[in-house]
Amino acid sequence: MSHNSFGHLLRVTTWGESHGPAIGGVVDGMPPRISFRLTHVQKYLDQRRPGASKFTSQRREADKVRILSGVLPRADSGDDVELTTTGTPVSMLIENVDARPKDYESLGGFYRPGHADHVYQAKYGIRDVSGSGRASARETAVRVAAGALARLVIPSVKIRGALVALGENEINRGNWDWKETENNDFWCPDIESVSLWEDYLKGLRKEGSSCGAVVEVHAQGVPAGLGAPIYGKLDADLASAMMGINAVKGVEIGAGFSAAKRRGEDNADQMRMEGDRIRFDSNHSGGVNGGISTGQDVVVRFAVKPTSSIPTALKSVDGEGREGEVSTKGRHDPCVGIRAVPVGEAMMALVLADHYLRHRAQTGAA
Amino acid sequence: MSHNSFGHLLRVTTWGESHGPAIGGVVDGMPPRISFRLTHVQKYLDQRRPGASKFTSQRREADKVRILSGVLPRADSGDDVELTTTGTPVSMLIENVDARPKDYESLGGFYRPGHADHVYQAKYGIRDVSGSGRASARETAVRVAAGALARLVIPSVKIRGALVALGENEINRGNWDWKETENNDFWCPDIESVSLWEDYLKGLRKEGSSCGAVVEVHAQGVPAGLGAPIYGKLDADLASAMMGINAVKGVEIGAGFSAAKRRGEDNADQMRMEGDRIRFDSNHSGGVNGGISTGQDVVVRFAVKPTSSIPTALKSVDGEGREGEVSTKGRHDPCVGIRAVPVGEAMMALVLADHYLRHRAQTGAA
Amino acid sequence: MSHNSFGHLLRVTTWGESHGPAIGGVVDGMPPRISFRLTHVQKYLDQRRPGASKFTSQRREADKVRILSGVLPRADSGDDVELTTTGTPVSMLIENVDARPKDYESLGGFYRPGHADHVYQAKYGIRDVSGSGRASARETAVRVAAGALARLVIPSVKIRGALVALGENEINRGNWDWKETENNDFWCPDIESVSLWEDYLKGLRKEGSSCGAVVEVHAQGVPAGLGAPIYGKLDADLASAMMGINAVKGVEIGAGFSAAKRRGEDNADQMRMEGDRIRFDSNHSGGVNGGISTGQDVVVRFAVKPTSSIPTALKSVDGEGREGEVSTKGRHDPCVGIRAVPVGEAMMALVLADHYLRHRAQTGAA
Amino acid sequence: MSHNSFGHLLRVTTWGESHGPAIGGVVDGMPPRISFRLTHVQKYLDQRRPGASKFTSQRREADKVRILSGVLPRADSGDDVELTTTGTPVSMLIENVDARPKDYESLGGFYRPGHADHVYQAKYGIRDVSGSGRASARETAVRVAAGALARLVIPSVKIRGALVALGENEINRGNWDWKETENNDFWCPDIESVSLWEDYLKGLRKEGSSCGAVVEVHAQGVPAGLGAPIYGKLDADLASAMMGINAVKGVEIGAGFSAAKRRGEDNADQMRMEGDRIRFDSNHSGGVNGGISTGQDVVVRFAVKPTSSIPTALKSVDGEGREGEVSTKGRHDPCVGIRAVPVGEAMMALVLADHYLRHRAQTGAA
Repeated sequence: MSHNSFGHLLRVTTWGESHGPAIGGVVDGMPPRISFRLTHVQKYLDQRRPGASKFTSQRREADKVRILSGVLPRADSGDDVELTTTGTPVSMLIENVDARPKDYESLGGFYRPGHADHVYQAKYGIRDVSGSGRASARETAVRVAAGALARLVIPSVKIRGALVALGENEINRGNWDWKETENNDFWCPDIESVSLWEDYLKGLRKEGSSCGAVVEVHAQGVPAGLGAPIYGKLDADLASAMMGINAVKGVEIGAGFSAAKRRGEDNADQMRMEGDRIRFDSNHSGGVNGGISTGQDVVVRFAVKPTSSIPTALKSVDGEGREGEVSTKGRHDPCVGIRAVPVGEAMMALVLADHYLRHRAQTGAA
Repeated sequence: MSHNSFGHLLRVTTWGESHGPAIGGVVDGMPPRISFRLTHVQKYLDQRRPGASKFTSQRREADKVRILSGVLPRADSGDDVELTTTGTPVSMLIENVDARPKDYESLGGFYRPGHADHVYQAKYGIRDVSGSGRASARETAVRVAAGALARLVIPSVKIRGALVALGENEINRGNWDWKETENNDFWCPDIESVSLWEDYLKGLRKEGSSCGAVVEVHAQGVPAGLGAPIYGKLDADLASAMMGINAVKGVEIGAGFSAAKRRGEDNADQMRMEGDRIRFDSNHSGGVNGGISTGQDVVVRFAVKPTSSIPTALKSVDGEGREGEVSTKGRHDPCVGIRAVPVGEAMMALVLADHYLRHRAQTGAA
Repeated sequence: MSHNSFGHLLRVTTWGESHGPAIGGVVDGMPPRISFRLTHVQKYLDQRRPGASKFTSQRREADKVRILSGVLPRADSGDDVELTTTGTPVSMLIENVDARPKDYESLGGFYRPGHADHVYQAKYGIRDVSGSGRASARETAVRVAAGALARLVIPSVKIRGALVALGENEINRGNWDWKETENNDFWCPDIESVSLWEDYLKGLRKEGSSCGAVVEVHAQGVPAGLGAPIYGKLDADLASAMMGINAVKGVEIGAGFSAAKRRGEDNADQMRMEGDRIRFDSNHSGGVNGGISTGQDVVVRFAVKPTSSIPTALKSVDGEGREGEVSTKGRHDPCVGIRAVPVGEAMMALVLADHYLRHRAQTGAA
Repeated sequence: MSHNSFGHLLRVTTWGESHGPAIGGVVDGMPPRISFRLTHVQKYLDQRRPGASKFTSQRREADKVRILSGVLPRADSGDDVELTTTGTPVSMLIENVDARPKDYESLGGFYRPGHADHVYQAKYGIRDVSGSGRASARETAVRVAAGALARLVIPSVKIRGALVALGENEINRGNWDWKETENNDFWCPDIESVSLWEDYLKGLRKEGSSCGAVVEVHAQGVPAGLGAPIYGKLDADLASAMMGINAVKGVEIGAGFSAAKRRGEDNADQMRMEGDRIRFDSNHSGGVNGGISTGQDVVVRFAVKPTSSIPTALKSVDGEGREGEVSTKGRHDPCVGIRAVPVGEAMMALVLADHYLRHRAQTGAA
């Protein structure tokens, strides 16, 4: 058991605080002889990196990852060298270069509503006041780096994420085009929503407010059979993975909450043969039945609450029982859901790669 | 790691198939010197038991639990004897007395849509065709029994569940009365919805159909501080616990998906002092921030899909690649969500008790 | 984490007390589609069973195992039916038929030296005075049953155990003949030691005393590559497995403690080719280097202390701080080491099968 | 599960290779609000550090540890600043400054007998030829650093180690004096053995040979009650911990293998009262009965095989199936057992601290 580890056979342990010298993680269980370049990991980190768009935090972090172990030749050989996993743990380290702990002194010890300030104090009797310390979304950079390695374990699976709602504004699913997600700052698959969302976010920021979002992640090419009854269910592990992302308050698989409103015959994914393969007439199950993958796309959706750090003053208390007001002036995302897209993809990759190894262990499946 | 275990310090391992001789589980890590009577466990089992209401499966299972180890005096001393935990694993066994494996022969090897038939075959290359075998909701009886023990670990926490939507019919939250949940067959807290739901379910059954439901579980009296960053978050573990219940497709904490639509200042749970205790003006967080309990009620909601086993014929295939139709004639619940209420409560108890022990381990908190 | 589980991918959870209604265990992670008969499991249980020889405890336990889940067809079909694993957890149950809790009343609450009486009381504040409760060697029956399943996972590995010392009497290794182990009550591979040991044990019993023993277990046919750095080492797991058997106080791999006395060039297992296979000139390593199997026989030795339950009076105290004397009159083995032989074999099988699955998971090796 | 993690509630994950850029580890589960100085950790690292004595490897590693997370104030504040644990994972990093991978080119691909070269190749199909890569004893530096943190969790426990045999030369236990262990290069508690051992080692080195050793570690002040049946036994975990140290081939608790030669009445640790505390007349149990601590000193002994890397030529093969000879010219310890003393102490601390937290979790004991 570890409070800061995730996965079983592909196991990630992360460490580090937002305003400490560095953050990092150890990926244990990587199969040996998988080749990749550091640029593969960096690509995904760059997608999550703050300061890259006008709609995300202006903290300037290069998020350059170093690999300190578990590959040959040594990773300090340059970004273009082909690295090969050796089967030993891969340690990754990202320096914090733009930490500004002084930004948080103005809080004067008051707990920021919606943040983990109060609960860390309640739990540990001590807390890192700078940028939420360990509770900061900065930790998700390590997840993204680990997820990049996880993708290498399941190369035939294609994982993609999108933002399907920004605040109250949902996309028109009829316009869904995966290519569009790469053309805008929101991972929005609906070109018609983009300019609307831009205006919406600008307005929110002007008003000192923030909004939530809904992220959807798809995994294509997952073979039938991943997952395990009863407490190693693929969907249960996905739920845990996504709910564990900062600010997430809800997770759905496939039809999700809308399934509760359906009748049995409408929700059933009926089956037929197409050549020698099973085809389903729908995918309300989101690619998982009984905790095991069906071979259809695995589809997960999660709700991100609005950014808690906002300039608008909120009532709060401090550790001495004094009442007061808190308004946050740091460099924050008006909608943390946007940068949660690559994090959601990474968690999907980690869960699937772990279950692939678990499945291979028990059944010998290639 | 175990595919069939749940929890870390309070750890439950379950076993058994729907139509095998028995089902059961082992609860490891129970603190010693906790006293209870077998009737305490039986009470919760009776809540989940099939055949108890006209709206649930007519399978007749007494669901009498035996405790084979981990308590003194020996559990065969009668239901009224006070048992005390010794700190060693508690083994519980429930015999299957009304199994009818022949009911499933009429399926002729066809995979039932929405069931785990196809994926078990894909994963293991063998499957128990009787009543879904291991994938049956019958396994949840063991969760309920284990949950009853978990409640003993956290006696000051009050856990209650309710059905807040049956198919498309949501309750009126203004009518919420916990006492009503004990007065109807649906765990419905809104007296005005009850007769409507009765008619609705009767209609569905007549039409050979089924419906989904939404369950909400509250835990009152949870101290601030339970949970752990980053991969031992209380909400992530709750999400896993609930998503792992049969037929669940979505999980929310607190405001859940509706948080995604809110603005930051509206979603914030602002704080003030009431005497020497912190009070929150709202509970959009559902009692969890940063993965750690806030001291407010922990509130979880989950969506249950409509029962997949319905008399209405559905298109399907079999293991030989033949196409055909499947209609299920067994003894099934028209809405499995109803009996999921005590199961959701049990999972809440298991997660909280486990986290209580984890918290005590790391911090020494009483 | 579980205090009562062993292994990772092949994971055994045991439960039960010596004088409770039953003991049992759950084996999770069995690969699917492995066929066997119940007689396969019973064979190993019969080897460990008490009452089978005049040199072991006279407690009469049939040790008939029932399999309640995880196989098809249902295990209640008779001992001769071929069962096939389904991949779901295998629950096994053995009833205690000759429990005599009253035998222990004469102890009057005094802690038996060398037993776990005192420490269970110190840890849990409650203890099962009958036959050591959970601490009884009776629990090892479940290990043996689980070990029988583990052997099925690694069918090409041959596991055999022997007693190489009874008290001060060591075998003459020049006489080693595996076949002899089946011909005497001691698992002694040296025919010349047998009658000597018989006389020795008879003498000890007459004197109200007991003796220790050394068990050696070999595994032949283990492929090179099982095990994992750094904290999943095969030898570390074997050490844990053997030290965890009741009354074991020492474990060696290969040359063991004698390696400490050797010079480097004498201890080295030099290598040469024999056809296309590597051959070693010796096996001081006991088949494990760097925590990973070499392909040679895996050889483990463990020391069992003398039976603590003896008729000779020993000074002791009780829970009230009174001093007194304890002498045990129950039905006990004069040398528990003898029956530890099949237990040691079972633990070897469990460790190797688990590591086989772990190796397959990470590397894809068949 | 993780191949490179150790412990449950105090959980250490290590990473790094002998000739990579750095080695390090993450200690998760540290209780919050424990204060210490970096010098506390460095002190133990210095004890294990190579190049410090003429009897150990001449590799020059400063072994300066950096703490990157989990403490306040930030660890880069200097060695003298008082640091306090925050309850989040403590990441430690030690740079490799004197790596010389070229030293290993002369091996020409031949497997060094007694090393993990052959088995890493067999397992992973790739290996780090420089200084054994991950299999190097260099990894133990991280264990020592983690052990220093573990000691802080159990401040009332005093852990000390000694070398009780160097090759064939055992100490005279009558001369045992803990203070002497700090006055010589061998951690030898017997002043009369020191000069003899010096001469012995010089002779071995001259002859291009090496020798093994036996290490003994004592823990004083361990409360009764740590450990857990059946698969969380304190002695089983100690066995795993010690056997997992590089080159260890045997582990004993208390009387160990000599217990096998004793009669029951001689091996029993009889009990009496001394005031209100239980006293034992002997400690053959080594402070552990039934897997649980008795309150006496926990005593563990382990055998270290002779250094495999020796100048004397040994027969070997390479990955192409060629036969040849290997002699090692690197900077190696003539007896790796010497530097295993602080490593054994660290593993003792890690096991005890982990079990202390486990015990606190289940029983609430302070």
